[in-house]
Amino acid sequence: MLTLEKVRLAESMLQGVARKTDMIQTSGLAPGCELWLKTENLQRTGSFKLRGAYFKMSQCSPEERKRGVVACSAGNHAQGVAFAAKQFGMKSTIFLPSSAPISKIEATRQYGAQIRLVDGAYDDAYAEAIAFNKETGAVFLHPFDDEDVIAGQATVGLETLMQLPSVEAIVVPVGGGGLLSGIGFAVKTLRPACKVYGVQASGADGMYRSFRSRNHCVTDAACTFADGIAVKAPGDLTYDMCSAYADDIVTVSEDEIAAAILALMERQKLVAEGAGAVSVAAVMFNKLPLEGVRTCAIVSGGNIDVNILSRVINRGLLTSGRLTNLSIELVDKPGQLKAVSALIADEGANVIRVHYTPGGENMDINGCYLNISMETRNHEHLERIKKVLRSNGFKLCD
Amino acid sequence: MLTLEKVRLAESMLQGVARKTDMIQTSGLAPGCELWLKTENLQRTGSFKLRGAYFKMSQCSPEERKRGVVACSAGNHAQGVAFAAKQFGMKSTIFLPSSAPISKIEATRQYGAQIRLVDGAYDDAYAEAIAFNKETGAVFLHPFDDEDVIAGQATVGLETLMQLPSVEAIVVPVGGGGLLSGIGFAVKTLRPACKVYGVQASGADGMYRSFRSRNHCVTDAACTFADGIAVKAPGDLTYDMCSAYADDIVTVSEDEIAAAILALMERQKLVAEGAGAVSVAAVMFNKLPLEGVRTCAIVSGGNIDVNILSRVINRGLLTSGRLTNLSIELVDKPGQLKAVSALIADEGANVIRVHYTPGGENMDINGCYLNISMETRNHEHLERIKKVLRSNGFKLCD
Repeated sequence: MLTLEKVRLAESMLQGVARKTDMIQTSGLAPGCELWLKTENLQRTGSFKLRGAYFKMSQCSPEERKRGVVACSAGNHAQGVAFAAKQFGMKSTIFLPSSAPISKIEATRQYGAQIRLVDGAYDDAYAEAIAFNKETGAVFLHPFDDEDVIAGQATVGLETLMQLPSVEAIVVPVGGGGLLSGIGFAVKTLRPACKVYGVQASGADGMYRSFRSRNHCVTDAACTFADGIAVKAPGDLTYDMCSAYADDIVTVSEDEIAAAILALMERQKLVAEGAGAVSVAAVMFNKLPLEGVRTCAIVSGGNIDVNILSRVINRGLLTSGRLTNLSIELVDKPGQLKAVSALIADEGANVIRVHYTPGGENMDINGCYLNISMETRNHEHLERIKKVLRSNGFKLCD
Repeated sequence: MLTLEKVRLAESMLQGVARKTDMIQTSGLAPGCELWLKTENLQRTGSFKLRGAYFKMSQCSPEERKRGVVACSAGNHAQGVAFAAKQFGMKSTIFLPSSAPISKIEATRQYGAQIRLVDGAYDDAYAEAIAFNKETGAVFLHPFDDEDVIAGQATVGLETLMQLPSVEAIVVPVGGGGLLSGIGFAVKTLRPACKVYGVQASGADGMYRSFRSRNHCVTDAACTFADGIAVKAPGDLTYDMCSAYADDIVTVSEDEIAAAILALMERQKLVAEGAGAVSVAAVMFNKLPLEGVRTCAIVSGGNIDVNILSRVINRGLLTSGRLTNLSIELVDKPGQLKAVSALIADEGANVIRVHYTPGGENMDINGCYLNISMETRNHEHLERIKKVLRSNGFKLCD
């Protein structure tokens, strides 16, 4: 049974290792409530995971430390384990699926871990990690279903209560449930009136389903770009603790997660990964009863691949009318491109890409398509440009 | 003459208004030195500018406060003035060139300012702001050449010394020179041994030229995407103070700024604007003698338009081999696209865009071009794909 004493011990062990990440008040992100962010994306290794990993290792015997640690992860846990092992001078071996993003593999390697790439999916890498553990006696470091790991993550809860003593609700991202278990335990022990909510991606909602049905269940697939919380099966311990301490668990969609990532970048100047932004998404899209409530959303991590970040931004620009792809049906005669270009320039939009292709079989033999990508200010600006083009005789395709 | 007493006064006035922004140690950003970041991009309004604006207003007489403030700015200063005026219940009128990014106009309006858009460039808006000041008596709030404004910015220096007492060098972005004047004064007064360096964009290097030639000069143009420091003329007061307190001033290129923005996002999970990232760029690209030196770079702001951020990311992905545009010369016969696609897929790259266009006049009549955009892992991965395509008989264009 986890005790407050153990969480306090973790807190003191983590001093000088984990950063006491900043608590930042948002402005305009969630008009209905007073929203604060606990910025664990600014934690060392880019996520809260090093807390649990480090505390777990601090509890190992000297004999265990000699045997080293082994873990299986494609992301934050890998970096947390590698970083923590380095602090203790322990050897760490991390098994990853070979499809893992190279940026995360490289980051883990840089913290000094031995990397073992395994062909196949996460489950294959997990099996090999367990085999390695049996073979070498290296301590297997579970990403969430472990009391020491949970005690380490619980320190996020202690810091939140200290940094924002008047907090009334805490919103926590959930994959396997280690962070929610830890924060839930600490907060409900010290401040029972404070609400604790969990948030999952709807494509990987094992803990949500288990919590709502009061029945520990496993999902068939974990399909979300929030790879940090793409977990099929809640842990045994974490299921029990989340059931005991969470007031509710909700889900958010991929588009809602993307919108939250974009809002965090634009308004708060913070890079969050999908897993780190689900908490903010739940507040932004009113998934929880937080009207007028002083709320803290845990932004649990920031390790997002820039390729993905670039897509999230582009999606956000498209949906907010700031990036537009227009397709115009033209009669192929001289001066048409010039005329369209002039109209767009006069309206103050910025063309960034042009394609000019012959028309299809339903068009006049002289017909062609002009595809234009341009930067616009907002939906209103875009509509004005469309109107000007139409009133000058150009036919826009939908 | 600015005094330490005035800076201390500014510090106490700003309590509860400006955030004491976090000081964060970097990892891997600048291998040669111990680099810390003072994160003023996480300041309210997204930059340090509210410090000077707020302190200036705090020094206004009740009669002046009734007349309100007027300012001219397209960016951070506008938001700082609008935010500060709101705290004092003062009316604020901000003149902006009509070409200013709509995101910054909207942000300024949301802080409660009256917005006046002026056709033309910054200078035209400035002239109208001065006319408004003469006409209405509203206090004109200069963005940098003002002792009270500089006293406010100097509080960044006080905080830096307090948060990182062992700091040996501080690197400061420079546009008009207000921040460098303030930090230089505070640091050289309290800790003369600590080096203070300024950094400008090479496309807007008025202070750099003035400092190096020991002759206050004005540049013809200010051409940089770091719009927050795109200033043609250093101020009179700021020129004198930068000359007195800076150890050196250097410049960085647009590509170096872009690389710093990308590195701050990927490694530190922070969104910085161009003006905010020049300090980090100078450290990353070894513009200063910082080998082994405990250094603090001021990340002065984060108000970057997402359109621009998206371009910066794409540029960074292209230069690091993670996004690639390949052009392949094909003979136009069935199965060619399929063959190319299969080779690329087998190598683990991810195709995101395809264009297929007829060949030019130098090609066989059956020739065509296949343009493919794809996500790759790094330069090595890209070269491997090129090699496989070539060894299968495909001709790549340069």
